Amino acid sequence: MTISGDSDFRVVIIGGGFGGLYAALSMRRLPIKITLIDRRNFHLFQPLLYQVATGALSPADVASPLRSVLKRQKNTRVVMGEVIDIDISGGKVIMSDGQIEYDVLIVAPGSHHHYFGNDNWEPLAPGLKTIEDATEIRRRILLAFEKAERERDPQIIKELLTFVVVGGGPTGVELAGALGEIAHRALKEDFRRINPEQAGIFLVEGNDRILIAYPPSLSDKAQKALEKKFGVTVLTKTQVIGVEPNRVKIKNDRTENFIPARTVLWAAGVKSSHLGKIITEKTGAALDKAGRVKVNNDLTVPGYPEIFVIGDLANIDDGHGQPLPALAPVAMQEGRYLAKLLGNRLKELPTKPFHFHNHGTMATIGRNSAVADLGWIRFGGYLGWLAWLFIHLMYIVEYENRLLVLVQWAWNYFTGNRTARLITGGSPFPLKKPKIENDATPPEEKERVKD
Amino acid sequence: MTISGDSDFRVVIIGGGFGGLYAALSMRRLPIKITLIDRRNFHLFQPLLYQVATGALSPADVASPLRSVLKRQKNTRVVMGEVIDIDISGGKVIMSDGQIEYDVLIVAPGSHHHYFGNDNWEPLAPGLKTIEDATEIRRRILLAFEKAERERDPQIIKELLTFVVVGGGPTGVELAGALGEIAHRALKEDFRRINPEQAGIFLVEGNDRILIAYPPSLSDKAQKALEKKFGVTVLTKTQVIGVEPNRVKIKNDRTENFIPARTVLWAAGVKSSHLGKIITEKTGAALDKAGRVKVNNDLTVPGYPEIFVIGDLANIDDGHGQPLPALAPVAMQEGRYLAKLLGNRLKELPTKPFHFHNHGTMATIGRNSAVADLGWIRFGGYLGWLAWLFIHLMYIVEYENRLLVLVQWAWNYFTGNRTARLITGGSPFPLKKPKIENDATPPEEKERVKD
Repeated sequence: MTISGDSDFRVVIIGGGFGGLYAALSMRRLPIKITLIDRRNFHLFQPLLYQVATGALSPADVASPLRSVLKRQKNTRVVMGEVIDIDISGGKVIMSDGQIEYDVLIVAPGSHHHYFGNDNWEPLAPGLKTIEDATEIRRRILLAFEKAERERDPQIIKELLTFVVVGGGPTGVELAGALGEIAHRALKEDFRRINPEQAGIFLVEGNDRILIAYPPSLSDKAQKALEKKFGVTVLTKTQVIGVEPNRVKIKNDRTENFIPARTVLWAAGVKSSHLGKIITEKTGAALDKAGRVKVNNDLTVPGYPEIFVIGDLANIDDGHGQPLPALAPVAMQEGRYLAKLLGNRLKELPTKPFHFHNHGTMATIGRNSAVADLGWIRFGGYLGWLAWLFIHLMYIVEYENRLLVLVQWAWNYFTGNRTARLITGGSPFPLKKPKIENDATPPEEKERVKD
Repeated sequence: MTISGDSDFRVVIIGGGFGGLYAALSMRRLPIKITLIDRRNFHLFQPLLYQVATGALSPADVASPLRSVLKRQKNTRVVMGEVIDIDISGGKVIMSDGQIEYDVLIVAPGSHHHYFGNDNWEPLAPGLKTIEDATEIRRRILLAFEKAERERDPQIIKELLTFVVVGGGPTGVELAGALGEIAHRALKEDFRRINPEQAGIFLVEGNDRILIAYPPSLSDKAQKALEKKFGVTVLTKTQVIGVEPNRVKIKNDRTENFIPARTVLWAAGVKSSHLGKIITEKTGAALDKAGRVKVNNDLTVPGYPEIFVIGDLANIDDGHGQPLPALAPVAMQEGRYLAKLLGNRLKELPTKPFHFHNHGTMATIGRNSAVADLGWIRFGGYLGWLAWLFIHLMYIVEYENRLLVLVQWAWNYFTGNRTARLITGGSPFPLKKPKIENDATPPEEKERVKD
């Protein structure tokens, strides 16, 4: 397909995540009309969302208003809308409240969490994909400590002070490490009856090691750091087979067991956007097991040179028979590649197939501790942590957010305090049945008044 | 009443606002056991809440976790709980989920907004008292611009781009000024179809001038600044007599009129806590028209030397026959006074009646513009604004929050950008009925596809 130099050439991008936003930003000099559609009015810096969920950062620190990021990019407009269908023969994106025509369509809707057929677990074990997820998780973690402080029944206190993170990928490791920091540093002196340091934190992973996408030596380093520095109990080769309000059922080889716990966080799986199914039905493109669209090596849908799929929804071979992982760097490079490809099409030039340049992967465990695999070098500990901090700061889109994140990280580092520790949304009451609370009250009195 | 030096002497404080928190903090050296009860886990710096509602600050910047503030104060514990009753003869505070006994009770529950018998207006015209109120107002303001950008009907666009603030007190003035900044600075270049500068902002006040508690010269200055610098239409001597989904009914002398507007913010009245009624019923204390408890000049409830009422719920004469206003400095001084009074009681010393030291009042209108009345001097403009900034920064409880607020103010000042512009909570869809949106589509085509 050839693009004329017509400035009315319409490129529609679905999704303002790493794929969609970097595609739009990279196309700033192309003589085209870009429409970026997102359900939300902001780009979310997902790699730091767990820090919102654990009270270290505020939602706005990891979210950049899309209009603000793109305000001076005159060839681009932002539409806040929800895409419900794609009219491929008509060249139109159908939103819940409107339609937008395209000449080229870039589909980058991201993914959401997946409970492997156990969707009823979701209310008990929230995942971490949106700002609302993060403030809900923050609320549950903090409320568990508040409730434990008020509780007298030792069994219930134990359940309240036990946290289970399901899934040992980077998000699970980061959440577990941050829970360790909350219990052992941030809340250490905050309570009078409970000792937050007695909190139990479990990280449950089905594979034989956490961070399965990393080299085994790094998985090992990460597990040791979680256990020794952050007080996390790592359970590998263990599957979650049930989530109940006050316990998690797990299976290890042939033994079944329960962890008594009232706070469960889900970091185990992602499900592709429903747009994958729509594209497959209308184009005949293949869908993989995870619901991703198998795209050509130029990221087009086979047979449809005007439709591109990038980011979490795209299945493209990594050169070793495996699909590229659902990571921000992959989506960003795909977005930039499309800018180059469309620029070439405008000049009627060919473009080489997409190739992902893997600059390495890293995961942080907590304060002074991270693991990194840059391909040519692997390292962990303090150096890994500094590298992690630096790289994440550099990738935050807005300068002001970089500054705010830096200030809060520095504060947190030196004081151990996490000040975004708000319990918001919904009423936390009633917590439980009435009881007497004054330590000065004699035990008989307590019993009497209780009845 | 005399207090023995007994360290089991129990002081219970209801409310962690300016009154309750400053009472607790000021009693840090007294040999007593303090229990601070609040429904929320944080102290809210209400004077800056309007900046959260208008996207300039994040919720955590104006909220300080109570446990964090009081962590090293060993004579104080924090209980997160909801007080539903007071058992005055039994000396117990009744919570929805427990009871706490007291020897001295300090009641500082604050107030909430008041619709003067029109509670059905609340869903259409939210007030600004909680963090959730602030994020809801932020959501409505930002969504109005988003919807206007998508809208084609000029009448609806006009309604969407008209904002009505009801009530010309400090909060109403600050909200109206901030809306002016949003329209004329922050969002100026963000949209492609609408021009945010065309937004209409109305401030409706029943009295003959805004900021009625200030000297007339300052009211005048504030009104001029709102009108000239921030594009606000100030309607004094005007009453809101109806709030509908797309218009506000107003009455000016004998004329009735409508303002077509879809976003209405309520800053008109406050209602006292229900605890006032409970105290009156059980002690026979008088309640004023606003539902405040008339207290003795030492802030005790008449006949009950162990019960104090402070803050918004207390009616205490200002020396000129008027009750002291519901302002943070009043509540803070009352809290500190109680620490002195209890300290004296411990030593069996008398305490002089409470006297409010008025160090002045100020209100900000927006960037470079505020009015201040310090009693011995009145000023406005840039100087007033600098004084306002400085004083508010100094009163923020946590050092980290001061730093974060300062960084964001500086950023906002130099760039005009407000980065906490997130639309969160609930789904904003569907916005409206389907329509075609590409500017490149010929009008006939648009019509055809619309059907």
